[in-house]
Amino acid sequence: MPDLRQNPATKEWVIIAKERARRPDDFAVEKPKEDESREEKENCVFCCGNENKTPKEIMAYRAFGTKPDTPGWWVRVVPNKFAALVPGGNPKRFKEHDFFRHMDGIGSHEVIIETPEHDLHIATMDQHQVEEVFLAYRERYLALSKDPNFEIIIIFRNHGRSAGTSIKHPHSQIIAAPVTPTHVRHRLEEAMRYFDDEGRCVYCDMLAKEKEVDERVVLETDNFICFEPYASRSPFETYILPKVHQACFKDITENMAKEFAYITRNTLRKIDKALNNPDYNYIIGSAPPQEAGGEYYHWHMRIVPKVSAVAGFELGSGIFINTVIPEEAAKFLKDIPA
Amino acid sequence: MPDLRQNPATKEWVIIAKERARRPDDFAVEKPKEDESREEKENCVFCCGNENKTPKEIMAYRAFGTKPDTPGWWVRVVPNKFAALVPGGNPKRFKEHDFFRHMDGIGSHEVIIETPEHDLHIATMDQHQVEEVFLAYRERYLALSKDPNFEIIIIFRNHGRSAGTSIKHPHSQIIAAPVTPTHVRHRLEEAMRYFDDEGRCVYCDMLAKEKEVDERVVLETDNFICFEPYASRSPFETYILPKVHQACFKDITENMAKEFAYITRNTLRKIDKALNNPDYNYIIGSAPPQEAGGEYYHWHMRIVPKVSAVAGFELGSGIFINTVIPEEAAKFLKDIPA
Repeated sequence: MPDLRQNPATKEWVIIAKERARRPDDFAVEKPKEDESREEKENCVFCCGNENKTPKEIMAYRAFGTKPDTPGWWVRVVPNKFAALVPGGNPKRFKEHDFFRHMDGIGSHEVIIETPEHDLHIATMDQHQVEEVFLAYRERYLALSKDPNFEIIIIFRNHGRSAGTSIKHPHSQIIAAPVTPTHVRHRLEEAMRYFDDEGRCVYCDMLAKEKEVDERVVLETDNFICFEPYASRSPFETYILPKVHQACFKDITENMAKEFAYITRNTLRKIDKALNNPDYNYIIGSAPPQEAGGEYYHWHMRIVPKVSAVAGFELGSGIFINTVIPEEAAKFLKDIPA
Repeated sequence: MPDLRQNPATKEWVIIAKERARRPDDFAVEKPKEDESREEKENCVFCCGNENKTPKEIMAYRAFGTKPDTPGWWVRVVPNKFAALVPGGNPKRFKEHDFFRHMDGIGSHEVIIETPEHDLHIATMDQHQVEEVFLAYRERYLALSKDPNFEIIIIFRNHGRSAGTSIKHPHSQIIAAPVTPTHVRHRLEEAMRYFDDEGRCVYCDMLAKEKEVDERVVLETDNFICFEPYASRSPFETYILPKVHQACFKDITENMAKEFAYITRNTLRKIDKALNNPDYNYIIGSAPPQEAGGEYYHWHMRIVPKVSAVAGFELGSGIFINTVIPEEAAKFLKDIPA
């Protein structure tokens, strides 16, 4: 069982992954390989035909009559083989030496294999396939949100080595955690504070202002808007929000999930073309499922392309510095066909 | 003048560096060079003899009778040529469209050139030289803390490319900012909350517990302690704290600064040997100078070696995961001679 430990001073929870712990002396510096070897590709654990190389599937969208953990699927969800959080265990907090708070690392850590095709990614998949991926996001989010021990559910995707991918085969991840990470809690608190002042959701106000000012909007559909935030932390940081107020990703309908897939794919196609297939992370931030229906938070996607050279200032000081003016980034992306 | 912009939803301040802004289309992916070319070394802007390649020096420790901006120095402080924050400007906040808060990017962004020798770093410099560097930290901190517009002063060092260094010549940076970064504010708030509950500084309690438990302490001197925190966010994350309560780095005496140099150098020597000269960041966190004398915060150094392969989970989810048990990391470092 992984251990969750809280820093008493910062209140940050950290997963201490004992199961996959490495010996301290395993850490002499290793450089990541730049290119995928042929061998890696042939042995890809997520490729069709290699279903026995992953833990048993949780769900899949697959052809009628095909059996679980065999070919025939087009989206497949499996537990992460090296899960950082695992189901079962005790949701109770304990204190070591009457000071250091910890608990079992209960939760879920799943991989959404987005397609049987090894070499695609969201920008290069066809629209229908991306819709299926986003429907899988929705379905797993809904399923995980039934467990009252899970305080937060996070969907994210890492594209490329500098974004942390070790397996090239296109996949997203979904985790359910029994604690709220501090950075999420702070976002919830700031939104609550704004609501307390203004009586309105700060994200609703932000998207209304972005539409009104119209200097940073990149794309719009009936129900979604994509823009470069006013204070983008890094070049081409991009937000996608539903225009209607929804606190929790749980509330997305099937039709909305397809439209969300559409705007996300088109945004990533623009970024892919504009920046020559950069590495990126995206993450879907949401209120906890227990607070679906809440008035102050608003789920949204943040896309963070890894385009700046390593940011020494930010790494060192903790202050973000962005060398691209968001209005210019927006104009540039807007003009590129999706 | 750089622009400071605040994200209305997260309240994070971001520096939009207009002066060194790049065109959006400059961002097609570039890979950093792995090794320093001979040319780079010969043209190093921080090397002795190249003083005219930096902005004019702010201060230096130099041989009697030698002139500013000429050889003869052993520690030299200059403004960063590509400063993210600059002196002057208006400390007033403004709102764009009655919603987006921003202000002038006033502050200071200085480089502390640690030695005329191009190829050293803290772990390989001799003890006396490191003391001089830390005395320069103190001197600049004290000088910057006199400006009431500077809300926070941060000293940091990036070692190696993956830690964000673009110039190999050994140097640290010191920035003074007119706003408190959210991650700093949250640390201050958590410490204040603990103080409100317990009537004691959480860092004082933490270091007392670490001494008592004695499982994670790496090094100790009369006035300082070095340990792996209970909930280290990454392998070998290391804290160094003064044992006596001091909220602000401003309060460090000259003698303490030398002792701080001693324990920092020895810690980095252990890390250097144990992990084969890994890249790292270190940062000195402190209460704002205006709150020197405060009861609830406690200045400290955090050392973060860049030893794990890229952490996809953390990049994606925002939750830290550590695959080394802090007690084992501490034992490993403790056993390595400094």
